[in-house]
Amino acid sequence: MSVFTTITPKELSAWLKNYALGELVELKGIAAGITNTNYAVTTTQGKYVLTLFETLQAHELPFYVNLMAHLAHHGIACAAPIANQRDEYIDTLAGRPTVIVGWLQGEPVTTPTTAQCRALGAMLAQMHRAGETYPGRMANPRGPVWWTATAAELYGYLDEAEAAQLRNELALQARYRFSHLPSGVVHCDLFRDNVLMHGEQIGGFIDFYYACNDILIYDLAITLNDWCAQEGGEIDAARAEALCAGYQSVRPFSQSERDAWPVMLRAAALRFWVSRLWDWHKPQAGELTFRKDPNVFQRILRHHATRGDTPRWL
Amino acid sequence: MSVFTTITPKELSAWLKNYALGELVELKGIAAGITNTNYAVTTTQGKYVLTLFETLQAHELPFYVNLMAHLAHHGIACAAPIANQRDEYIDTLAGRPTVIVGWLQGEPVTTPTTAQCRALGAMLAQMHRAGETYPGRMANPRGPVWWTATAAELYGYLDEAEAAQLRNELALQARYRFSHLPSGVVHCDLFRDNVLMHGEQIGGFIDFYYACNDILIYDLAITLNDWCAQEGGEIDAARAEALCAGYQSVRPFSQSERDAWPVMLRAAALRFWVSRLWDWHKPQAGELTFRKDPNVFQRILRHHATRGDTPRWL
Repeated sequence: MSVFTTITPKELSAWLKNYALGELVELKGIAAGITNTNYAVTTTQGKYVLTLFETLQAHELPFYVNLMAHLAHHGIACAAPIANQRDEYIDTLAGRPTVIVGWLQGEPVTTPTTAQCRALGAMLAQMHRAGETYPGRMANPRGPVWWTATAAELYGYLDEAEAAQLRNELALQARYRFSHLPSGVVHCDLFRDNVLMHGEQIGGFIDFYYACNDILIYDLAITLNDWCAQEGGEIDAARAEALCAGYQSVRPFSQSERDAWPVMLRAAALRFWVSRLWDWHKPQAGELTFRKDPNVFQRILRHHATRGDTPRWL
Repeated sequence: MSVFTTITPKELSAWLKNYALGELVELKGIAAGITNTNYAVTTTQGKYVLTLFETLQAHELPFYVNLMAHLAHHGIACAAPIANQRDEYIDTLAGRPTVIVGWLQGEPVTTPTTAQCRALGAMLAQMHRAGETYPGRMANPRGPVWWTATAAELYGYLDEAEAAQLRNELALQARYRFSHLPSGVVHCDLFRDNVLMHGEQIGGFIDFYYACNDILIYDLAITLNDWCAQEGGEIDAARAEALCAGYQSVRPFSQSERDAWPVMLRAAALRFWVSRLWDWHKPQAGELTFRKDPNVFQRILRHHATRGDTPRWL
């Protein structure tokens, strides 16, 4: 990844003639983004984000791109893809599958307030509801089958305590089945850097390329583990309460969801612990990935484990 | 018309549960709008315009509403309709067909600048291009058949000079056929009050309820007659030039379009002269319409007629 593709204003001006977006005024690379090339594009008509996909193929994109369009037309704060003159969202530029979306207001926050957590929870639940009529289907490629197989290759790299904890978490998850819980379209990667905040409002959810069909509260658990965890892995109760209250203001938990919640929080932490351990110990040759600390999720898991029963903040 | 429908915050709050738009914060009537009831709706998530249709029936709306959605997803500045939980744009509230759209920035201008005219022309041409892939079809109900029949009922109300001018214009138009010119989706009512300007940018086109399939440059002619006419009916050359240059920066005129242009400007003025004469002399019983001065278009027609050949500002 990080094979960034350079495009010139001249190339882009010619390409923009396939769109109803006016004439190019400014083209600026966006530093963020590990797997795709992103440009900020200003035209006589407005501001947009142009994404050139470096790893995803054109045939893999429709699920994500049509999902973004579906959610945007339901009023969910997310980047709306813009169709070209052939009425297609996915075009080609510099040999890469390319999508151009409307610019969203806001920036990611590092330390969210409780008001922001509440707004986030509400928007996530709105997204889950709006997703009910989305016809696309995508299995979660990072589910139990994946984490079990991946863990098996990781034990050799872990110390005894880590390995024991990982085995323990896998064994715990293997005792649970969640197929009775409401499922639907989930973002599955709604970390702080994938949400633009505009004051206390959600400017937009971005980076839908882990979206899939899965258990709805699993999505909330992933979100909570990032938005509400403190340095040491404890969950900030005020933020967690606000996030869950916001979510439930739109989509209240059923009793089954409530019962599953403690284990769901651990499943969500396990998934990212495993993927980060993998990226840490087995970086792909030639890859310039930002390796992120896996221990964050080890600590979160430990805290979830010691707490045991359903947290008060649900 | 003007049978305004009142809705309460309580009714609206309940209705909004069909949408993914958050909770109602404020509901405010919008004074503008002669044929529909419009409300400004603020929710925890954003700001919207709610329209309750007073005369159009639900089955008549899809052409317009799907058109707005189509144009919005091509990046054309217009209100994007928002789908409800059943994935439908058209819902019902207080017994009226109802549509909720995103709030657009900007306000109508009375005296447009040349920069605004240029931006308007470019956006109109973008709209015509983006409309090429729109599958909906709608005949223009205000075409030559309509204006001929309507004029026949008006002569009795006109003085001799007016009647002669009207007969003359109808005779002129009857000598021309434009079926060889490029046609497509046109707004057909892009007067200043139907365009929100945000500085020099187009905030949005609104009020698509005269949109139909017709000759593309007829749409530009309607627009020009309102945006560029001065009090006495003369066309402001600088504004007209900017409007046409903006349009042609996206969609240059063909030779046939250039040849047809002087007569097209008169067709566009004739259509509104006739409809305003009708509203003036034959207001519908019980109707609270704002009658607009028909003579504006009579004067514009006179100026177009005396100029004769293709204006320099094309």
